[in-house]
Amino acid sequence: MEDCYPKGYRSVVFNAGIKDDTLDLGVVHSEKPAHAAAVFTTNKIKGNPVLIGQKHIKKGFIQTLVVNSKNSNVATGQPGYDDAMEIVKKVKDELGLEKTSLVFPSSTGVIGRRMPVDKIKLALDNLKAKLPGTFSYGDFARAIMTTDTVPKYLCARIDDAVLVGVAKGSGMIEPNMATMLSYFFTDADISSKDLDKILRRGVDMSFNAISIDSDMSTSDTVLLMANGMAGPVSVKKFARVFNKMAIALAKMIVTDGEGVTKMLICDVNGAKNDGEAKKIAKSIINSPLVKTAIYQGDPNWGRIFMAVGKTPDVKVNPDKLKIFWGKPPRHYKDAEMDQLHEYLKSNSELRLTVDLGVGKGSFRAYGCDLTEEYVKINAYYTT
Amino acid sequence: MEDCYPKGYRSVVFNAGIKDDTLDLGVVHSEKPAHAAAVFTTNKIKGNPVLIGQKHIKKGFIQTLVVNSKNSNVATGQPGYDDAMEIVKKVKDELGLEKTSLVFPSSTGVIGRRMPVDKIKLALDNLKAKLPGTFSYGDFARAIMTTDTVPKYLCARIDDAVLVGVAKGSGMIEPNMATMLSYFFTDADISSKDLDKILRRGVDMSFNAISIDSDMSTSDTVLLMANGMAGPVSVKKFARVFNKMAIALAKMIVTDGEGVTKMLICDVNGAKNDGEAKKIAKSIINSPLVKTAIYQGDPNWGRIFMAVGKTPDVKVNPDKLKIFWGKPPRHYKDAEMDQLHEYLKSNSELRLTVDLGVGKGSFRAYGCDLTEEYVKINAYYTT
Repeated sequence: MEDCYPKGYRSVVFNAGIKDDTLDLGVVHSEKPAHAAAVFTTNKIKGNPVLIGQKHIKKGFIQTLVVNSKNSNVATGQPGYDDAMEIVKKVKDELGLEKTSLVFPSSTGVIGRRMPVDKIKLALDNLKAKLPGTFSYGDFARAIMTTDTVPKYLCARIDDAVLVGVAKGSGMIEPNMATMLSYFFTDADISSKDLDKILRRGVDMSFNAISIDSDMSTSDTVLLMANGMAGPVSVKKFARVFNKMAIALAKMIVTDGEGVTKMLICDVNGAKNDGEAKKIAKSIINSPLVKTAIYQGDPNWGRIFMAVGKTPDVKVNPDKLKIFWGKPPRHYKDAEMDQLHEYLKSNSELRLTVDLGVGKGSFRAYGCDLTEEYVKINAYYTT
Repeated sequence: MEDCYPKGYRSVVFNAGIKDDTLDLGVVHSEKPAHAAAVFTTNKIKGNPVLIGQKHIKKGFIQTLVVNSKNSNVATGQPGYDDAMEIVKKVKDELGLEKTSLVFPSSTGVIGRRMPVDKIKLALDNLKAKLPGTFSYGDFARAIMTTDTVPKYLCARIDDAVLVGVAKGSGMIEPNMATMLSYFFTDADISSKDLDKILRRGVDMSFNAISIDSDMSTSDTVLLMANGMAGPVSVKKFARVFNKMAIALAKMIVTDGEGVTKMLICDVNGAKNDGEAKKIAKSIINSPLVKTAIYQGDPNWGRIFMAVGKTPDVKVNPDKLKIFWGKPPRHYKDAEMDQLHEYLKSNSELRLTVDLGVGKGSFRAYGCDLTEEYVKINAYYTT
């Protein structure tokens, strides 16, 4: 990935001293305003930066992304909203942007505390001069890490264009909840409308298909920027690469999830429709009894049955329900539980296929095991 | 509770050798067919005894209850259904009942294995002679225990009548999922229609208000029998006692839950309506991040905000949301987090009150913490 860079993007990272002396602030700036699309958490309590991002993305253009960790600016009311806007305006002024709405803010970290706006503004002083000529997305990925153990970023080429994806999550953030942030930057020339379609479809099969612990953050954000500097590309091809990258980043998030030792890739086929397949797949990967069973490789298929059956508002016929493990999918008979135990024990990426036999709907979800380590990470600390 | 017995009930418990040499079978028999009502799991995959119980309860009368542990008779298809019916018919024949539908079967235990019908029938041979003159509901509670650490039963008087409640759950059953079973026996004379109303309302605020791990069993059953031998009582008074007893048993189940060290009693007030209050209360008590926070007494109110906000299809106004702890409810300021930590650490029964400030709906839910012990109980064993 040495020389895999989209044209016209530059980045810089800082320690603004929000909490300690580690990296806590990052800026990505595009030479030209970029077509942009974004999706946000559906949590009814949203961080102030999310509320601002939702407004700004409506114009269809974003030029500069400013992200901090260590404070999520959630549940801080109007003063917190004003704090976020002060940072946005600082970025706009420093870089001489045409409009405030070209700045896209994100924050992740503790809930309910006011942002140290002065510290952040101090770090952003003379931002134009501080921005190097390069886009160090690896450093940017590092700056937005919290309890992530590895920075998460990927790069790919589509014709003459380049697509970079950066993600963080779902480690525990400071003394608060997990947040998933993901940003995509390309120099391809794609309309905001097309970007929006590509983003929503891709997110649905990647970031919306994963779960570490079923808890949804108040700050989840995915942004896709396309500044057009490499000219047009095949939208179809771009979408294919985007989907692949989004899924790869989503899987990196699961693998790096709190206390995770095993990933569970769960295909639900033969559902009444794709929506019902998704509900059932999510019910399976979120079931504590399924998650604890796969942790130690217990071949306990009764728990899968239970998780399928408890899904609300879906069509299930117990007599048609079939469970397969591995790739290619294999059905283990009652007499083969030792072999299934062996499969579950010896693989860190497990494949589960559930066939409902009632229709043509399907969905793939990505989950993980539930371990003592998850409990430890989330129980033993003081705010 | 020495001489607290409803008239006309007798019981007997056995080891039928379904799995080992511990108690695994219990029968409760009423001298006269009793008016009866029942509610069952809403899991789409139901145990065969549940399917039979659903049919039999429609007639409005039950005379004999037969319950086994160690095998749930779930996902065993038509042969499993026939097995359950064979046991039901055996009980009917042995006791000379008028109709098969007077027998109510329940099973709890491993999923997907055929019942050892012959062993059970052998235990039930000469059942009439084996039935003592007494109703040893404490023994019956013991016979249906699985990983429960204490038998759960209560007795109360309503006028001249007596109400007994017996429950099991939510320990892990054998190598399978938690099941909640609860049976109520009274000698009061109450119509099946009134029983049904009392039962549904009472269950909604007790057994349907608890959660250990958000996983719903395929065998959950609550049965209420009233043989009328003590004559009529005030239905209102009876309902009040029933509700109180159901809540007390439900709390016993939570306290005895897997790995549980703390109970969380969560009141949601000021919701748009009671239904929305229930959804939000359940979202809070089921959130792994809330559950791990209360385990070690982390005063992390951001996680409560998150859990409220992620509840689908409810009205939430972040600016009006207020959180209180303890009884009477107390709001802890940011500067008082040490005191809140102290409250959370030093109490095993925690009271949380969430006020949404958007309406008049309310609901009380009973949850618990998530501990390493829960993971251990559910991960480390082989089927």
